[in-house]
Amino acid sequence: MFEFKIIKKDTKSNARRGVLLTPHGEIQTPVFMPVGTQGTVKAMKPEELIEVGTQIILANTYHLYLRPGDEIIKESGGIHKFMNWHKPILTDSGGFQIFSLSKLNKVSEEGVAFQSHIDGSKHFLTPERSIEIQNNLGADIIMAFDECTFYPVNYNTAKESMSLTIEWASRSKNAQKNKFQALFGIVQGSIFSDLREHCTEEIIKIGFDGYAIGGLSVGEPKEEMFKIVKQISPLLPEDKPRYLMGVGTPDDLKECIKMGIDMFDCVIPTRNARNGKLFTSEGEINIKQNKYTRDYRPLDEKCDCYTCKNYSRAYLRHLYMTNEILSSILNTTHNICFFHKIVKKIREEIC
Amino acid sequence: MFEFKIIKKDTKSNARRGVLLTPHGEIQTPVFMPVGTQGTVKAMKPEELIEVGTQIILANTYHLYLRPGDEIIKESGGIHKFMNWHKPILTDSGGFQIFSLSKLNKVSEEGVAFQSHIDGSKHFLTPERSIEIQNNLGADIIMAFDECTFYPVNYNTAKESMSLTIEWASRSKNAQKNKFQALFGIVQGSIFSDLREHCTEEIIKIGFDGYAIGGLSVGEPKEEMFKIVKQISPLLPEDKPRYLMGVGTPDDLKECIKMGIDMFDCVIPTRNARNGKLFTSEGEINIKQNKYTRDYRPLDEKCDCYTCKNYSRAYLRHLYMTNEILSSILNTTHNICFFHKIVKKIREEIC
Repeated sequence: MFEFKIIKKDTKSNARRGVLLTPHGEIQTPVFMPVGTQGTVKAMKPEELIEVGTQIILANTYHLYLRPGDEIIKESGGIHKFMNWHKPILTDSGGFQIFSLSKLNKVSEEGVAFQSHIDGSKHFLTPERSIEIQNNLGADIIMAFDECTFYPVNYNTAKESMSLTIEWASRSKNAQKNKFQALFGIVQGSIFSDLREHCTEEIIKIGFDGYAIGGLSVGEPKEEMFKIVKQISPLLPEDKPRYLMGVGTPDDLKECIKMGIDMFDCVIPTRNARNGKLFTSEGEINIKQNKYTRDYRPLDEKCDCYTCKNYSRAYLRHLYMTNEILSSILNTTHNICFFHKIVKKIREEIC
Repeated sequence: MFEFKIIKKDTKSNARRGVLLTPHGEIQTPVFMPVGTQGTVKAMKPEELIEVGTQIILANTYHLYLRPGDEIIKESGGIHKFMNWHKPILTDSGGFQIFSLSKLNKVSEEGVAFQSHIDGSKHFLTPERSIEIQNNLGADIIMAFDECTFYPVNYNTAKESMSLTIEWASRSKNAQKNKFQALFGIVQGSIFSDLREHCTEEIIKIGFDGYAIGGLSVGEPKEEMFKIVKQISPLLPEDKPRYLMGVGTPDDLKECIKMGIDMFDCVIPTRNARNGKLFTSEGEINIKQNKYTRDYRPLDEKCDCYTCKNYSRAYLRHLYMTNEILSSILNTTHNICFFHKIVKKIREEIC
């Protein structure tokens, strides 16, 4: 039910063009995955995502576990049916959000104790429990449970954390029994090359359907991120998809595709859209600026998305300034479309 | 460019079925008009409104005058183009919002001085200026500038206000020069039958393309509202559309259509939707209630709207509880559809 085929390799870089087969359809890679944190890509209906070219979305295990609860999603027929998105879905392991959002988390070898950022309720997540939750959610691709360090972190802490991530990766694999779901392992190790390399070797030994580079885009300088991606990407198995978690800007995507990355997710297009920060072929613009008050041109004259075909910058500014819901809808439509078109263009140029 | 034809009159009540011809197309009456306060029906794209059966929307002159300003809408090609809604639009006169939203308003025979509820800036609106703003906006149907009293109001105040409304109606008519826009007069007079009757006579004498009953659903007991509608509706010219402003619930619409009303607008379906209050064939429900947590049925099994065809109550509750934008989108879609279907059914039963 899960297969990765490389169709073409770039002659001028390490970029690859491929196809990922999942129970909910094919994905052309490289691919950008919009983030649907709570079982919805904010402000978008599924049909609108398909219209702008979305092939797969990411949903957050941490959020869905807390609300509405993975049992409810399982009972309702799984995450695809629950949210009316019948194309592929990837769920993360919950690790990143526990370490970035929740309160009073305490890490032991067994797992992580944390308090919900919503109501303070106490929870304990282990690799086995994360996989069980992800089995209940029923995404096409699920992730091993990892500990994510942020930047800066000292070497010894990063090393301990990496060791724990390896241990948890092994337990995640043992816990995963659902043959319809692909399981990806995650490489950690912060910005330390030797830790990253060691972690990569160990994660490959365990063996996964795909490999992710985690713990980047967490505050480190951009050159550190590129350094690690450039180092680790070629060490990952050639015949498996490579996923760079939480990255990035259009330029980040371009660079990292050249380094051999196949999959990306990031909240930038959606979150920025809601804040009025829009990507255009002439650069980023902030739609709230006064200069757009009487600007009756489309947001991006080179774009054929629904927003650019039907509305003016003046109208988009008006919607943003009056805090209208349609502002988020139109802005998100455009930004996601912009990201997909960039990746599509790069994909088609791989030869 | 503006014509009203009555197609059928009900044999058991005063209900009429008609067609309103406007520069942006035909409207089957009786009709419910969703409210698009700031140049957008909150949470809805124009195509989605058309899909649920919206024929005409109302936009608020007060809001659009303050933001983005009627000059900008005029420059951009008019309200239809600005908001990408190419079917009929009605704008109110701004009067109701000045008296309900703005601060420190001072009424004189000349007009109303008020401060913006947004930034406290000072403005002065007269019948002539209201018509000029509505000309700039460019709706198909525009309204005479009136003073709206709220409930309760004493007889003498209501009488003075009614007299001013008549004077302003006359000045509104004189100010209106745009032959592409129909101008409706408004009957005021609070709950006092003799004031209402006098106002009706005077407004008819001035002569308008349609007639509205204003100043109801402003806090008075429901029986007072029905009493006035029942009294005034048959006094209005038979061959002109009759518009009951700001009303109401599905039951209100049913009752008032029987009394001969052709047009309604109200924020109930849209505002309630955003608050999780949904209309169904089995009554109103509040989607945030615990009992919907594991309710995997559609919102309304008898409804074929996009929301009911594709999502469960459990998912709608989840979206509401997590404050997701899609909650407003899906709920508004359903509630507007529900209102249109009720009015459509009544319309088709008129014979």
